Amino acid sequence: MAHVTRIKVRGYHLDGYGHVNNARYLEFLEEGRWGIMDDSDTIHALEDLGQAFVVVQINIRFRKPICMGDRIEVHTRLDKLGVSSGEMEQVIRPEGSDVLMSDAKVMFVIVDKQTHRPVAIDGRLREVLDRVRRR
Amino acid sequence: MAHVTRIKVRGYHLDGYGHVNNARYLEFLEEGRWGIMDDSDTIHALEDLGQAFVVVQINIRFRKPICMGDRIEVHTRLDKLGVSSGEMEQVIRPEGSDVLMSDAKVMFVIVDKQTHRPVAIDGRLREVLDRVRRR
Amino acid sequence: MAHVTRIKVRGYHLDGYGHVNNARYLEFLEEGRWGIMDDSDTIHALEDLGQAFVVVQINIRFRKPICMGDRIEVHTRLDKLGVSSGEMEQVIRPEGSDVLMSDAKVMFVIVDKQTHRPVAIDGRLREVLDRVRRR
Amino acid sequence: MAHVTRIKVRGYHLDGYGHVNNARYLEFLEEGRWGIMDDSDTIHALEDLGQAFVVVQINIRFRKPICMGDRIEVHTRLDKLGVSSGEMEQVIRPEGSDVLMSDAKVMFVIVDKQTHRPVAIDGRLREVLDRVRRR
Repeated sequence: MAHVTRIKVRGYHLDGYGHVNNARYLEFLEEGRWGIMDDSDTIHALEDLGQAFVVVQINIRFRKPICMGDRIEVHTRLDKLGVSSGEMEQVIRPEGSDVLMSDAKVMFVIVDKQTHRPVAIDGRLREVLDRVRRR
Repeated sequence: MAHVTRIKVRGYHLDGYGHVNNARYLEFLEEGRWGIMDDSDTIHALEDLGQAFVVVQINIRFRKPICMGDRIEVHTRLDKLGVSSGEMEQVIRPEGSDVLMSDAKVMFVIVDKQTHRPVAIDGRLREVLDRVRRR
Repeated sequence: MAHVTRIKVRGYHLDGYGHVNNARYLEFLEEGRWGIMDDSDTIHALEDLGQAFVVVQINIRFRKPICMGDRIEVHTRLDKLGVSSGEMEQVIRPEGSDVLMSDAKVMFVIVDKQTHRPVAIDGRLREVLDRVRRR
Repeated sequence: MAHVTRIKVRGYHLDGYGHVNNARYLEFLEEGRWGIMDDSDTIHALEDLGQAFVVVQINIRFRKPICMGDRIEVHTRLDKLGVSSGEMEQVIRPEGSDVLMSDAKVMFVIVDKQTHRPVAIDGRLREVLDRVRRR
């Protein structure tokens, strides 16, 4: 079960081609990741630990153009969880449809905010993220 | 004499109407303000003093649409300089032309980064900004 | 009575100062205007008439910084309606609070999409916008 | 030999972490692609043919944070050219340095603007892109 963020596409999301611009997809995906982290209390766990969620790679496919007035859903799932890193899968679909507009793999690491170095995902953060992954 | 920033308009600057989007104008203006502050050493003066340049009001008129491929100039002038505040005037023109595409008044205050409160513009910062204003 | 758009402030809305960036305010305001036009059927009326809503001036004051995690409301009202133009008033407040974070006057004209020239606001569009104004 | 676009990083490029935001990288890359297409006359060839360059996939790695004041270079190369598609490689480095801040593979197809379907890269467009690839 994925977390779902709903967005209505507006004129300022589009670019000169009349479609949602590539860069804006990454904001839609980021909104989805904040959504899943907000709902699951991941943000608070990170803050308490002085740690941060840092994206290290995004592999995104643009499958169908997204246009003005489209109602879309960003589905976000935590797919893999390693020692200090993980992978989210995110897909964009029209509301209430199975059509695939875009899909992305997002690799991340958890870093210590002081040292900026990866740290083991442990304790409360591990619990919270395990729950997210099993949803 | 104003500071001039040159921008070539790209597809990602446009919105669904095929024109540069309102919000993007504010990025073009901000680029112009960083330009004038960079050239005049204002940024270093602020950093040394632990002070920041904070925009408190922007009044912008959108006079002509700006389109794909347009080469534009952002002209930035420091117009007024008060005790702790000032006003910049910024206009956007096609490169090498007098046509007015957009013009804006930008009001700012100088604040202390610790207290977040306005401070008197003094010493080296006053010197630097006086030079900018007289250009 | 104003139309209200709710936004939760995310990391990508902020800039290097840790506050929502000036340009992003204009996207928040645009979201509010799409919201009021969507709810009131203004978008369909414009499309049927081959007309467009074009912003000609924005005068915005940034009164309090908006920060990460803030839940904000964009309140949008149609304030004045002339022959072919009008003025919206938009304010940003924290959710459920009267504190003023930002307020803006947004002047617009209705133009014919073919000629790009202002047209008289008439018929169904006049009815729809009159209802919006009286809310 | 790659095409190089130079950018000075400003406050509005950053997000709440004080680093250039993920989505902004995609604008930097898009600026680089417009640059290489502009210099090589690809834009005019596409316009004359009624064809468009459409990005179908981006695989980007974020290797080092990019910060306020950084002077960066976006290096863009056309790596592969197939029947109707191709691949660009783009890397971001500090000005005059070999350090890798980010690298991306960008897959594209050439489509007919009327039918929105991929078309064979032929004639003048093929010549232009072949020259770009051999640079």
